[in-house]
Amino acid sequence: MHPFDQALSLEPVSPGVFRGHSSPAYWNMVGPFGGSTAATLLKAVLSHPDCLGEPVSLTVNYAGALGDGAFEVRLEAARTNRSTQHWTAAIWQCEADGQWRINTTATVLTAVRRETWSQSDVPVPQVPPPQDVTRFELFDSVAWIKQYETRPIVGALPPVWDGSLRSSLMQLWMRDAQPRAIDHLALAAMSDVFYPRIWLRRALRVPAGTVSMTVYFHADAPTLAATGSGFVLGQAQTQAFHNNFFDQTAQLWNEAGQILTTSHQIVYYKE
Amino acid sequence: MHPFDQALSLEPVSPGVFRGHSSPAYWNMVGPFGGSTAATLLKAVLSHPDCLGEPVSLTVNYAGALGDGAFEVRLEAARTNRSTQHWTAAIWQCEADGQWRINTTATVLTAVRRETWSQSDVPVPQVPPPQDVTRFELFDSVAWIKQYETRPIVGALPPVWDGSLRSSLMQLWMRDAQPRAIDHLALAAMSDVFYPRIWLRRALRVPAGTVSMTVYFHADAPTLAATGSGFVLGQAQTQAFHNNFFDQTAQLWNEAGQILTTSHQIVYYKE
Repeated sequence: MHPFDQALSLEPVSPGVFRGHSSPAYWNMVGPFGGSTAATLLKAVLSHPDCLGEPVSLTVNYAGALGDGAFEVRLEAARTNRSTQHWTAAIWQCEADGQWRINTTATVLTAVRRETWSQSDVPVPQVPPPQDVTRFELFDSVAWIKQYETRPIVGALPPVWDGSLRSSLMQLWMRDAQPRAIDHLALAAMSDVFYPRIWLRRALRVPAGTVSMTVYFHADAPTLAATGSGFVLGQAQTQAFHNNFFDQTAQLWNEAGQILTTSHQIVYYKE
Repeated sequence: MHPFDQALSLEPVSPGVFRGHSSPAYWNMVGPFGGSTAATLLKAVLSHPDCLGEPVSLTVNYAGALGDGAFEVRLEAARTNRSTQHWTAAIWQCEADGQWRINTTATVLTAVRRETWSQSDVPVPQVPPPQDVTRFELFDSVAWIKQYETRPIVGALPPVWDGSLRSSLMQLWMRDAQPRAIDHLALAAMSDVFYPRIWLRRALRVPAGTVSMTVYFHADAPTLAATGSGFVLGQAQTQAFHNNFFDQTAQLWNEAGQILTTSHQIVYYKE
């Protein structure tokens, strides 16, 4: 089984409740990689027998630390329409004091799509093809980064942590280190692959962590089929840093230049 | 009482439950203006006695039609940390068949902010000052638009509905028609003031409606004080239209050029 699918393993407990387990392979500094947590919540929705259609929107709120060990995803369809469905979900975990608490909340919109006039309006960044970009692991200190093959084009890391200012823009090619066909779960995780923009913008490794992320999926089944297990081009930058919180706006494309997701997150930082 | 505050009136029913009533003054075509619904949910959170700090992030999912009449906002703090708090909320309404159902869900992040290094990286659009831009009501057929004084600079409306293609970019100055000091509630509502981008992009009035909106607040109390009841500069455009759903990314600034919010929505469209 692929490490990503292993990390996302969920066992049905009762209607609307799944049991999962945090994955050492996707461990970050003090908890799991936020991208795999987002994917886990989305997987619970897509695994629910009542789920209608494909994911269109996913919002994940990282409310508290998801600890090592078992957890439960509890979810329900808040409303089901003819072609759209709205889900609310949360991750519950039994904490050190024996109390069950929520550490992550999510809302998901799924829909049955029909073919319409379609158009992507964000220019695809003009970058060299993945095979012409050197593979480079951004950080060797965390487990999850080794699950991805990353080939940064712009904004890999500041050359020195000297507090000098530069653009927050990052562009990179990425794919699973062990090949896996891209699905919506992979796109949810890849939307969170960018390290904190403030580290790049200021060349300072200040404490920072995502508190909320929203992913809009523009890729549907035919786009995913065209994407396969190829490289994904990611781009991320910040619009505003203000008193403890900055945003990040990001896009993912496949090698053919089709847009897969647009996503946004708000990130806590300390100075 | 200002019409906006009247529309957002909430009566506490029990801990975590407020009763509200849809407002004719903010009525849209088949329900209330989505911006006032977003503001109502945010107001419920900010009115809760346990609420910690100021709003940082708000996601609203328009799951079903909010009908004319009374409704309940039910909310709870999913997790409270030292300086951040995560809320889940929903609007419940008794429908024609006598059943109570959810028509809107939301998550809200509030936080106590501290002063840090801050920087806005989106260029403020170079536009003429509000007094040099003609006041123009985008649509006279809906009530809520009359609650705002709008002065469109770019992308007001296509000159004719002839299916010709153009940019989805809109820029406008706006403020409450009846003066009111800008607060987070006003910013939540103003983030939804832009009409469906596809109408502009294609010069076609196809059926369209927001299904999920996320607002990141960069304005804290000092920024709001500097904003007062002045004009707000809004900018919105779409990144991708694909098979029934397009996104919108938007920014709001005050007259001094300080960034107030960055927001995103995903919008259903047909054809």
